[in-house]
Amino acid sequence: MYWVLIRDATNEDWPEIWSFFRVIVAAGETFSYDRDMPEDQARQVWLIEPPGRTVVAIEQDGGALVGTAKMHANHGGGAAHVATASFMVDPQHPGRGIGRALGEHVVAWAQAEGFRLMQFNAVVESNLRAVQLWRLLGFEVLGTLPQGFHHPVDGYVGLHVMYRTL
Amino acid sequence: MYWVLIRDATNEDWPEIWSFFRVIVAAGETFSYDRDMPEDQARQVWLIEPPGRTVVAIEQDGGALVGTAKMHANHGGGAAHVATASFMVDPQHPGRGIGRALGEHVVAWAQAEGFRLMQFNAVVESNLRAVQLWRLLGFEVLGTLPQGFHHPVDGYVGLHVMYRTL
Repeated sequence: MYWVLIRDATNEDWPEIWSFFRVIVAAGETFSYDRDMPEDQARQVWLIEPPGRTVVAIEQDGGALVGTAKMHANHGGGAAHVATASFMVDPQHPGRGIGRALGEHVVAWAQAEGFRLMQFNAVVESNLRAVQLWRLLGFEVLGTLPQGFHHPVDGYVGLHVMYRTL
Repeated sequence: MYWVLIRDATNEDWPEIWSFFRVIVAAGETFSYDRDMPEDQARQVWLIEPPGRTVVAIEQDGGALVGTAKMHANHGGGAAHVATASFMVDPQHPGRGIGRALGEHVVAWAQAEGFRLMQFNAVVESNLRAVQLWRLLGFEVLGTLPQGFHHPVDGYVGLHVMYRTL
């Protein structure tokens, strides 16, 4: 079995997060972030303050940091009961259930915090691994922005808005 | 005829914007902003820096500031061709075409800037005036988050994601 521990991120985790964050964002295939996002901006975007939260996934054997997620309210005011989240898994560790563990953790967090809904604002249609995982975790596609994402290999593909009730 | 001029907002416009911004946000019926948003935060949220843009609508007769809009990229990276915008019209001046003039201006701006799509992320379903106006301007509902907005009078209503191609 492969076990990961999920805990709150600390400033000391940043170098390990950045080691794969930069690779994922530079690839430009899954995140709607500028591909050359500078490190200081990336850090500011990812390591968020309460009431939002950033977590990391740590391998039980060896202690490597293999994934991360951030979660927070998607809106304020009358829509403050809608949460959102973003996820990254180190591409060197695919298919080990790290994304699933992070997703389940985030859903449980949002439920515990009293959110009623969770929405992902921009899931790239061709990111089949992610779409399949979110479906498995109870999310469905609310709508797909046609040609909403320009993938470096696939060209223009749809951009899903996905959601689930909590 | 009722004419409005639309021009870039300046810092000097803020007090007039705030005079109705605070009323609209405090009512909590149309914006997913915290209803008690402090003025300094409101100003920071609304008066945005290039490449985004904030405009105001000025009455030709009398020079009163009767509406405002802000517009910017909705995402970065592979989705940087998707724009978004937000609008406020002074509730003391309804039904005079101010929202429509602002909407047309924003669509033309986004086209000129080379955006390919425009998306509104959170249109309150019960805000019929806005939904009707955006439909008139070529937007359609991409999806509706069920019970995505808690309206102070109507209770839980849907939250539309709307879009159009440019």
